[in-house]
Amino acid sequence: MRKQIDLNCDMGESFGAYTFGSDERLLEHISSANIACGFHAGDPNVMDRTIRLAKKYNVAIGAHPGFPDIAGFGRRMIEFSPEEIYRIVLYQIGSLQAFCKVHQVQMLHVKAHGALYNQAVYQRATAEAIVRAVYDLNPSLILYGLAGSELLKAGREAGLTVASEVFADRTYQPDGSLTPRHDKNSLIQDVDQAVAQVKRMLRSGNVQAVNGELVEIEADTVCVHGDGPHAVGFVENLRKSLTEQGIKVTQLVE
Amino acid sequence: MRKQIDLNCDMGESFGAYTFGSDERLLEHISSANIACGFHAGDPNVMDRTIRLAKKYNVAIGAHPGFPDIAGFGRRMIEFSPEEIYRIVLYQIGSLQAFCKVHQVQMLHVKAHGALYNQAVYQRATAEAIVRAVYDLNPSLILYGLAGSELLKAGREAGLTVASEVFADRTYQPDGSLTPRHDKNSLIQDVDQAVAQVKRMLRSGNVQAVNGELVEIEADTVCVHGDGPHAVGFVENLRKSLTEQGIKVTQLVE
Amino acid sequence: MRKQIDLNCDMGESFGAYTFGSDERLLEHISSANIACGFHAGDPNVMDRTIRLAKKYNVAIGAHPGFPDIAGFGRRMIEFSPEEIYRIVLYQIGSLQAFCKVHQVQMLHVKAHGALYNQAVYQRATAEAIVRAVYDLNPSLILYGLAGSELLKAGREAGLTVASEVFADRTYQPDGSLTPRHDKNSLIQDVDQAVAQVKRMLRSGNVQAVNGELVEIEADTVCVHGDGPHAVGFVENLRKSLTEQGIKVTQLVE
Amino acid sequence: MRKQIDLNCDMGESFGAYTFGSDERLLEHISSANIACGFHAGDPNVMDRTIRLAKKYNVAIGAHPGFPDIAGFGRRMIEFSPEEIYRIVLYQIGSLQAFCKVHQVQMLHVKAHGALYNQAVYQRATAEAIVRAVYDLNPSLILYGLAGSELLKAGREAGLTVASEVFADRTYQPDGSLTPRHDKNSLIQDVDQAVAQVKRMLRSGNVQAVNGELVEIEADTVCVHGDGPHAVGFVENLRKSLTEQGIKVTQLVE
Repeated sequence: MRKQIDLNCDMGESFGAYTFGSDERLLEHISSANIACGFHAGDPNVMDRTIRLAKKYNVAIGAHPGFPDIAGFGRRMIEFSPEEIYRIVLYQIGSLQAFCKVHQVQMLHVKAHGALYNQAVYQRATAEAIVRAVYDLNPSLILYGLAGSELLKAGREAGLTVASEVFADRTYQPDGSLTPRHDKNSLIQDVDQAVAQVKRMLRSGNVQAVNGELVEIEADTVCVHGDGPHAVGFVENLRKSLTEQGIKVTQLVE
Repeated sequence: MRKQIDLNCDMGESFGAYTFGSDERLLEHISSANIACGFHAGDPNVMDRTIRLAKKYNVAIGAHPGFPDIAGFGRRMIEFSPEEIYRIVLYQIGSLQAFCKVHQVQMLHVKAHGALYNQAVYQRATAEAIVRAVYDLNPSLILYGLAGSELLKAGREAGLTVASEVFADRTYQPDGSLTPRHDKNSLIQDVDQAVAQVKRMLRSGNVQAVNGELVEIEADTVCVHGDGPHAVGFVENLRKSLTEQGIKVTQLVE
Repeated sequence: MRKQIDLNCDMGESFGAYTFGSDERLLEHISSANIACGFHAGDPNVMDRTIRLAKKYNVAIGAHPGFPDIAGFGRRMIEFSPEEIYRIVLYQIGSLQAFCKVHQVQMLHVKAHGALYNQAVYQRATAEAIVRAVYDLNPSLILYGLAGSELLKAGREAGLTVASEVFADRTYQPDGSLTPRHDKNSLIQDVDQAVAQVKRMLRSGNVQAVNGELVEIEADTVCVHGDGPHAVGFVENLRKSLTEQGIKVTQLVE
Repeated sequence: MRKQIDLNCDMGESFGAYTFGSDERLLEHISSANIACGFHAGDPNVMDRTIRLAKKYNVAIGAHPGFPDIAGFGRRMIEFSPEEIYRIVLYQIGSLQAFCKVHQVQMLHVKAHGALYNQAVYQRATAEAIVRAVYDLNPSLILYGLAGSELLKAGREAGLTVASEVFADRTYQPDGSLTPRHDKNSLIQDVDQAVAQVKRMLRSGNVQAVNGELVEIEADTVCVHGDGPHAVGFVENLRKSLTEQGIKVTQLVE
């Protein structure tokens, strides 16, 4: 049984006068921060502040590139060619890299955001574009992606270290995909159940789908959410329970 | 007498479907390209294309950061604190750096754009913010700035290599400043006169102001303009004439 | 045989320092201008200038709403719900209406732009959203749409006056759709052939598809393009030839 | 003594996924809503929702135009000519007007936002540009402006009805201006004191400046703030106390 897991959370998604999420309170409980790069959220001020905070809490820093779409928070599909996706990912990682440089911290991973992340689950060309951008810039970056996604496959084939992402608070379908959010049983709100799901993933390498079937799944990192009224409490409890169960929450590179 | 000069030009200022300037035709004649980074102009596609072109023509590549203001082309004053200026410059250089990395070219200089450039002529805090961003990211970058500006002073004091920028096609005031554009005698349209002005700067280290006085000026690089119907012809003639006069047009680092 | 036709052209698609198209030169030859409203192109300065010009040349004024996407010129698909499409169309027509008010001109029509226009050809929900926005704001506005599109059907059913748009310089498929641009025979570059196509549409109510079949088509207005090096010459010749053939070029409401 | 006062509050300043203020809870207590128009805040979805809400709570609706600057929330100075200010104000009022039309509510007033509002306090050209835009569009709109501002003077001279705006929770200087926010005594946090200040304004037409002097001031409308943790409670208490003191809170046009 694996004895450790990474908890990652999207961060730095405020924008100008607009506040999003509870970054500082969450940083106490997570091990990796995916920092928005100004395309779907974040701006140079927010990026600077978030890097400082992540450094202060000794949390691993990754880039969180998304579609250029503040108005849609990067959640809506926008038509881009693979070449364009390569370039927008490159641009965003580069911009965050500059802040890492001046704060003397290392960027360790990349996790795509929202519609870009979702597109990379099924679309091979999108997945490859992201992979190439990451690889061309820095082949030692860890690529985060949904367990079972095209993104992880493309990343592995290219020689990147990948981190297979699972959810503690989402249910799974028999094919290993996440139950869509609009389904009524898509969310797990009970922390004990969420911890049990993560524990099973680590112990047995599988997850119990909504129909009871066991589905193989690889769990390197658990995605937790930073927005919503109960976000901080859930993450705090999740970490505490994992620790009590002997599972160490820690970043992937130590 | 100095025998060589750099010709620099703003590049990559197209945006999406909008074309600006005649980049490729100009690249044949200049020695340094200041490439927009997506804030006042340019976008990831344009940046990629411009870096490729500059590489093809063996022209030195620099970042050309500006205010975040596509609608105003970075030409209008926007209120930013020095800390914010530091961060927007950092962000932009970082984004261009990523494209340099994947195209295996080196970024050699930084030149601020438009209102940011103008603000750094007189405002010490702005000048220092730009200098710090450049220095913190990469102290070997050459900082371009208007001859006599606060930016050059701050850059020199911080230990950066600076390039003092002059204009071939603009007239000068007795205090060494440029004659404002709205003045009727602000422009030099005759190429011979423009070449004579540059030659005097290199030979004697001064320029003849509009009132006839000679004013000391340091000329490391001449700024040429890429837009306007006669831009390409002017630059082509300028380079040809300089060469005929024994002045070699070449980038600052060889 | 119908003896008159409207020539419409997209206008006011410049943005800030970026110039697009040859608006003033085209206004001499067309009868209706579709004026961008600041979402896919245009800005308050450009809108003001374009309304002035259209008024000067006595050309009918219409709103030209598109997706909020200056970076993509409204040409790429972005995911919007029908309710959102309703609101972005409403917003844009309202904004242009304000300029019409102060310049004491009447807005006569609405034509959607780019990806929004294309989506309304086949997607009924998009078509209805546009129709409702136009109708709710001003049911006397004429709705322009591609001949045979869902947009025209939805508009007619809602009680709007619609204008069926055809192309002089594009070829047609046997199902009445336009030959996709990437096909090598999609464009008609010969003005005589373009005029012949329009004349047939007006005389016989049909068009000869690329395979020789005759397809019914209704032609109220011909879309001409304002960008490209030959745009002005083509439109000038088209108008001249139509006039010589006894077809009057005139706006739909006189 | 005047027996009634308008309470106005900025509304509809959320943007996409970003929430700002507590609009619905505040609408129970205020009489006029200044609705953002998508330039400094707000978007077509938010505008639609806010108009619905204001209608539901029977609160007077006004346009709240600002600088085009979501990233800066319209709070930072941007260089615009008076002609440009005229056009951006026109555009924004027009866009909101479209939503008023389809929701069958009347727009009653205009209040400028942030840096635009502040600029119109002292700069005559800015004030006149706003006044002309409002007047040209609809001379029956009420123009809100800071008590004593150039904006109110220009509005009155042009023949607009103006509303002189005061603050319940800000202190005043002997010249009638607001104590700058960074001064430690700039805010009045005690509701009783805030009510007393408003009552004095209505009863005696003056306000007691920080040095004790009485300064003439005209109070047609009190600006209350919708953001901050205590905003709703303060406004609720302010309205309750005013009502108890016999001052009716009501919109300016009944």
